[in-house]
Amino acid sequence: MAKTQRLALLLVRLLAFAATLSAAVVMATSHEKASLFTISFEAKYSQTPAFKYFVIANAIVSVYGILVLFLPSESLLWRLVVAFDLVFTMLLNSSISAALAIAYVGKKGNTYAGWLPICGQVPRYCGQVKGALIAGFIALIIYMALLLHAIHTVLDPLLLKKT
Amino acid sequence: MAKTQRLALLLVRLLAFAATLSAAVVMATSHEKASLFTISFEAKYSQTPAFKYFVIANAIVSVYGILVLFLPSESLLWRLVVAFDLVFTMLLNSSISAALAIAYVGKKGNTYAGWLPICGQVPRYCGQVKGALIAGFIALIIYMALLLHAIHTVLDPLLLKKT
Repeated sequence: MAKTQRLALLLVRLLAFAATLSAAVVMATSHEKASLFTISFEAKYSQTPAFKYFVIANAIVSVYGILVLFLPSESLLWRLVVAFDLVFTMLLNSSISAALAIAYVGKKGNTYAGWLPICGQVPRYCGQVKGALIAGFIALIIYMALLLHAIHTVLDPLLLKKT
Repeated sequence: MAKTQRLALLLVRLLAFAATLSAAVVMATSHEKASLFTISFEAKYSQTPAFKYFVIANAIVSVYGILVLFLPSESLLWRLVVAFDLVFTMLLNSSISAALAIAYVGKKGNTYAGWLPICGQVPRYCGQVKGALIAGFIALIIYMALLLHAIHTVLDPLLLKKT
């Protein structure tokens, strides 16, 4: 039973690793050339600090995700994994929120600030950013579930074992 | 000893409550009238979805923060507080990251997307947003510390009690 559960948890972590890795790769490869009137320009993730932060954060969480998978089950480091999970989930959450806020301005613009939407000119670029954000969200949900599971198991907040 | 520690934790929570409340209030009251050439306009937090989200998130965390303070120490709900802390810290983190990403564009602009900085026109508004972000960050750091403390106490990840 405990072994099945451990395997399930490792599979879930593998999924989270795949999600963060795809998020980083999809965002990092997003670019599109477009021309407006006579000016031609290229949209790239590296032009937006929030997207750069997204790529770096997802890359860091991916490295952590793969390292945890190869941690021997008898390692004492597993006791630190909950704390690490918390820190890296925060990093992931923060990078997704920042990238989403910027992507929203890119899609809808902000008339008050005079910022025009750019997705009309570079639809393929915007689609790729959207894909990266979705992959990031999947990873975030998995890490949140892992954290809540850890809290539930250790703290038994619903007092299920007492009944 | 346990009583002193409990009192210290409540004081820290009071500080976090004060920080989220000030963040919400400072952001919600931020506005400035300015005129560019002959056009006069007003900058307000409600014109930016990310800032609205920041106010709402900080207000929600403030309500949670004050409710926790009045939770009787013998209440069984205390066992759920770690899980609640996690969820509300995530909310806070996400709102601060989104607001910071937008504030950064407001300050520096983004030449590639053609978004001009607006802080030159409305410096007082930008200053107030900055203040709200700093208050939010203080609250975030406190909640992160509370979470890491909870993980440390319950999981004893550094094995301090074993030695």
